[in-house]
Amino acid sequence: MIRFNCDYLEGTHPRILEALAETNLSQTCGYGEDEYCEAAREVIKKACKCEDAAVHFLVGGTQANLTVIASILRPHQAVLCVKEGHVNAHETGAIEATGHKVMAIEGKDGKISAEQIREQHKLHWGDGAHEHITQPKLVYISNPTELGTIYSKRELEAIRKACDDCNMYLYLDGARLGYGLASKENDLTLEDIAKNCDVFYIGGTKVGALFGEAVVITNKALQEDFRYIIKQKGGMLAKGRLLGIQFFELFKDGLYFEISEHAMKMAELLKSGLSELGYKFYADSPTNQQFVIVADEKLKQLDEKYSYEYQMRYEEKYSVVRFCTSWATKEEHVLALIEDMK
Amino acid sequence: MIRFNCDYLEGTHPRILEALAETNLSQTCGYGEDEYCEAAREVIKKACKCEDAAVHFLVGGTQANLTVIASILRPHQAVLCVKEGHVNAHETGAIEATGHKVMAIEGKDGKISAEQIREQHKLHWGDGAHEHITQPKLVYISNPTELGTIYSKRELEAIRKACDDCNMYLYLDGARLGYGLASKENDLTLEDIAKNCDVFYIGGTKVGALFGEAVVITNKALQEDFRYIIKQKGGMLAKGRLLGIQFFELFKDGLYFEISEHAMKMAELLKSGLSELGYKFYADSPTNQQFVIVADEKLKQLDEKYSYEYQMRYEEKYSVVRFCTSWATKEEHVLALIEDMK
Amino acid sequence: MIRFNCDYLEGTHPRILEALAETNLSQTCGYGEDEYCEAAREVIKKACKCEDAAVHFLVGGTQANLTVIASILRPHQAVLCVKEGHVNAHETGAIEATGHKVMAIEGKDGKISAEQIREQHKLHWGDGAHEHITQPKLVYISNPTELGTIYSKRELEAIRKACDDCNMYLYLDGARLGYGLASKENDLTLEDIAKNCDVFYIGGTKVGALFGEAVVITNKALQEDFRYIIKQKGGMLAKGRLLGIQFFELFKDGLYFEISEHAMKMAELLKSGLSELGYKFYADSPTNQQFVIVADEKLKQLDEKYSYEYQMRYEEKYSVVRFCTSWATKEEHVLALIEDMK
Amino acid sequence: MIRFNCDYLEGTHPRILEALAETNLSQTCGYGEDEYCEAAREVIKKACKCEDAAVHFLVGGTQANLTVIASILRPHQAVLCVKEGHVNAHETGAIEATGHKVMAIEGKDGKISAEQIREQHKLHWGDGAHEHITQPKLVYISNPTELGTIYSKRELEAIRKACDDCNMYLYLDGARLGYGLASKENDLTLEDIAKNCDVFYIGGTKVGALFGEAVVITNKALQEDFRYIIKQKGGMLAKGRLLGIQFFELFKDGLYFEISEHAMKMAELLKSGLSELGYKFYADSPTNQQFVIVADEKLKQLDEKYSYEYQMRYEEKYSVVRFCTSWATKEEHVLALIEDMK
Repeated sequence: MIRFNCDYLEGTHPRILEALAETNLSQTCGYGEDEYCEAAREVIKKACKCEDAAVHFLVGGTQANLTVIASILRPHQAVLCVKEGHVNAHETGAIEATGHKVMAIEGKDGKISAEQIREQHKLHWGDGAHEHITQPKLVYISNPTELGTIYSKRELEAIRKACDDCNMYLYLDGARLGYGLASKENDLTLEDIAKNCDVFYIGGTKVGALFGEAVVITNKALQEDFRYIIKQKGGMLAKGRLLGIQFFELFKDGLYFEISEHAMKMAELLKSGLSELGYKFYADSPTNQQFVIVADEKLKQLDEKYSYEYQMRYEEKYSVVRFCTSWATKEEHVLALIEDMK
Repeated sequence: MIRFNCDYLEGTHPRILEALAETNLSQTCGYGEDEYCEAAREVIKKACKCEDAAVHFLVGGTQANLTVIASILRPHQAVLCVKEGHVNAHETGAIEATGHKVMAIEGKDGKISAEQIREQHKLHWGDGAHEHITQPKLVYISNPTELGTIYSKRELEAIRKACDDCNMYLYLDGARLGYGLASKENDLTLEDIAKNCDVFYIGGTKVGALFGEAVVITNKALQEDFRYIIKQKGGMLAKGRLLGIQFFELFKDGLYFEISEHAMKMAELLKSGLSELGYKFYADSPTNQQFVIVADEKLKQLDEKYSYEYQMRYEEKYSVVRFCTSWATKEEHVLALIEDMK
Repeated sequence: MIRFNCDYLEGTHPRILEALAETNLSQTCGYGEDEYCEAAREVIKKACKCEDAAVHFLVGGTQANLTVIASILRPHQAVLCVKEGHVNAHETGAIEATGHKVMAIEGKDGKISAEQIREQHKLHWGDGAHEHITQPKLVYISNPTELGTIYSKRELEAIRKACDDCNMYLYLDGARLGYGLASKENDLTLEDIAKNCDVFYIGGTKVGALFGEAVVITNKALQEDFRYIIKQKGGMLAKGRLLGIQFFELFKDGLYFEISEHAMKMAELLKSGLSELGYKFYADSPTNQQFVIVADEKLKQLDEKYSYEYQMRYEEKYSVVRFCTSWATKEEHVLALIEDMK
Repeated sequence: MIRFNCDYLEGTHPRILEALAETNLSQTCGYGEDEYCEAAREVIKKACKCEDAAVHFLVGGTQANLTVIASILRPHQAVLCVKEGHVNAHETGAIEATGHKVMAIEGKDGKISAEQIREQHKLHWGDGAHEHITQPKLVYISNPTELGTIYSKRELEAIRKACDDCNMYLYLDGARLGYGLASKENDLTLEDIAKNCDVFYIGGTKVGALFGEAVVITNKALQEDFRYIIKQKGGMLAKGRLLGIQFFELFKDGLYFEISEHAMKMAELLKSGLSELGYKFYADSPTNQQFVIVADEKLKQLDEKYSYEYQMRYEEKYSVVRFCTSWATKEEHVLALIEDMK
């Protein structure tokens, strides 16, 4: 079975495994206050060109999202995002479980626009009875989005401006950030993201790490007491060093970007291969998730040899399925898949 | 200024004020365990023909909604309702603040259908990854709805059946229940409601009481420890008797139904009067809330003498506004309004 | 049956009932934004000599406590109070239900001291691992306390100083504030309380109102968006005017203080009467709650004619019981009780 | 620097690292539904002699505690434990953040007794006003406790009986379970624990794993929908297999018990060594945590070469400190420490 259903199918990049093995029996203090974490924080701040940022390591994405959001909002404040937003659609009400409404609106290609933020702000504050409605206070975006699309620099800056004008915070979920930054169509840098977001996270789980996400808080007003919230929400790893070791390895010499580029090459190979075969795509994704429209009959045939993620029915005899590439995808597997989809 | 903006503009029906005055200096124990509450519970159970129900008195609607829902759901379970649902649109995230997602879907005329419930159930359980999504477990409806429409007996029974088939609970918000039951188009009785809902509440605040709502729990499995939840959520009135005295007065001899009928007569008078003048309605409401499309110019003129609730822009020079009648509405005021809307 | 078990046995002071009757059919807007509430806010601010305060009206004490506390604290922050504190011992986990730990410590006579606050602060911040423990951020006191004792001006000022030094907020629960202020031993004024607390509430339910508590927020930093939290927690009364009418009546010409003095006279009569009979007291209360040690045999005899609140076993054949007086207590009843306790 | 401050100083047992390396590039589905997790569940159920148990893998202890407790309790229900209980004293209000009070009572040697459970039950239900107080519904114990002590089989069975009689659940936190089971004084087996607890967890983080805890739910009534709660609380690891691989390695052939015995040998060596030198112990711990009373002057000297966990002042010139051994402790280090403590 060759798997394409997601980007967390394997363990970790061999260099990370080596780093874990090398440091395995060294003794450190716990809870992320060790020298490995400190070194990782430094290389990440350098990569973001943001010396004042606070960097924290968490184990997973849902945990990062709920911890960040619970840390920022007062009880009556809500998260604004598109319907497909991970916090709205794939986290079993993790945000609501911390007491906050997710105000989900219809996006375009999985993205929210600056105009929509302004509109929602106006809708809320224009209403005489705004106290009867949750107050949109934090904009949640992911980059790449759930549909594999990415924000341009112009879009991100417009969103930042809208947030400033509306007195709202901007949080970017970068579960697949590496793949977004490595996309041919991308014009954003880590520095741009750090400059425009109040908080964001750099995903490790899906981009070469064994597990782990690096939360970067650039807004100083949001840095206070964040470690308490991590602990309270169950995210403070006793052996915090495990995360430091991994992120140091990923960022000390550009491994994160290098392996992201590999994933993107594989995605482009797949995309162009399937396009040439006449396949159509549900969304025009420039990143590692490809949403392809496939005849059900063809899918049955693929099932014997490949895994993919079923998305939804497209029309009577056609479905949308997702193929993902990753840092670990082998070219021969992509070529085999293209061959078998003929 | 003559006010039509809502149905809680005045204090209370004179008979209730008298009852409060008569009992004022009598001494009772607190927290709803006095003889007045006991008597009120009895007349309500009789009116519902449901001797096994548990009846609890709460001060307001949002409080009733959040207490009932928090009492029933486990953390990962969600409320299913239409977008206009009061718990979704007018309670500042009260349900989310107890940890639960409100799954709001597009209704029709403010109502959810049995088919939609089945569909949502299928969507949830059909998905391989259902554990990544909140589980719809309780259907919330209001009758009348936020648009003034009502459920027919056939519709309610179909919803009950869908809930049974889908292993979901049914909760009816009856903030304006009296007006619904008194509508000409209504074919439901209190007994039907008690038979088909697991929990519902009979609204007092908007139907003649000074304040107060009577929560009726007909499903025995949901009755356990409900008083703890009332207390925890801040809804246990020290002088619980105040609610007992009022609901006894409303239900001992049919006052609740009688004053609801008055409100409906006034609503019909207004509706037919405006129809004759050529006004159009945003929703075809058979109850005490009338949503009328009015020219902005006309509204300016009305503003000097009347209050109404602005709803939204309809088209360039027209708006939707709400006029409400109630137990306290005076015929002369309705006639004056019709006259001034010529 | 003559009842002494609590101070919320009757309805309301006749003047309040009259005010409710007089205004009953006048029409106002809802949710506390009417002219009655505005007038009540003004007389309360004047009584507190604090023009900058924000005044909000809530229905009950638990509701006021949970709304205030949820509004102020971030998720990892906790309430510091004595074990008997109402929020710790009598509210079914209302504070925890909003996500916050109540850190309860052993007080003296129901009171916390400035030294204890400093100690707890030191304990928290001195610990290397403070992030593993909730952060004490708000001191909760009641005046009078659950044992009927009161804070002196010197004590309150010392607590304020400790809170300032420890970067903590001070919140005073004044469910029985009138009785505290009317105590012979009291040297505090409303003004002192407003000056020394960040937030406090003036209890109406137990001091002559039908129901209702007036929350006074003197710290401007804590005033923002408070109405959202009221609504979310279910405490925003549709007919908010009911609370305004009552508090205006209580404060427009000193009724609140006058009826509190009556309660205190009755309490002193009872206390001195029982002292003369040789009864001992569990706590030396200078307010309207008297905690008396009574032989079980005597209690049996009293049961036929009087109600009191059983507190706990004192020694083999003796118990502690509470007798309360209030604005409504009749002198003849107190005298009868003293007579029957001979 | 030789570290004795805790039992999570190093990475993982070499065999686990090997297993992770061997499986690193194999592809599996996510979220704990892979074959490695399945195999690990099987060996754990076999070790517990409890085929009907549900086994779930979580990353850390606080996460396990809050997920289990949130899954079981209704909003008004509370956790009963001793003051030192990890959920009460070291988790930054994680349980309260899910809405539940922790009712902490004074234990003996870090343990709760069956009598205390019965007493608390009686206190709650005996009180007329029990609805004003949180309902104790789940007993939380840890074994070993925070003081290193362990429960005997007789004690555990008595607690089980008390829970049954009081209609309460029993949850055992086994963060250091291996060390407890390997203690000379222990007479409990995994099977006994599975038989007597409704839920418990087998700690991996502190007993040889890289990270991870195995939650075992033996009470079938508590198994439903547990995976939803894991996801909601942020504990569902995308690469769930990482936990399966580790626990399979620990339990497939007794490695868990074997390495625990090593830790216990080291602890006994340390304990007897220090005893012989005349040191006294704050608690008589038969497990891997030793709480020793040491002169401050001596501590200063140790600081140059060793780490330990400072606990508290004992008397003027003496302190209590904790030394921990673990699966990774080297005999030469223990001997060096004893030598240096002469």
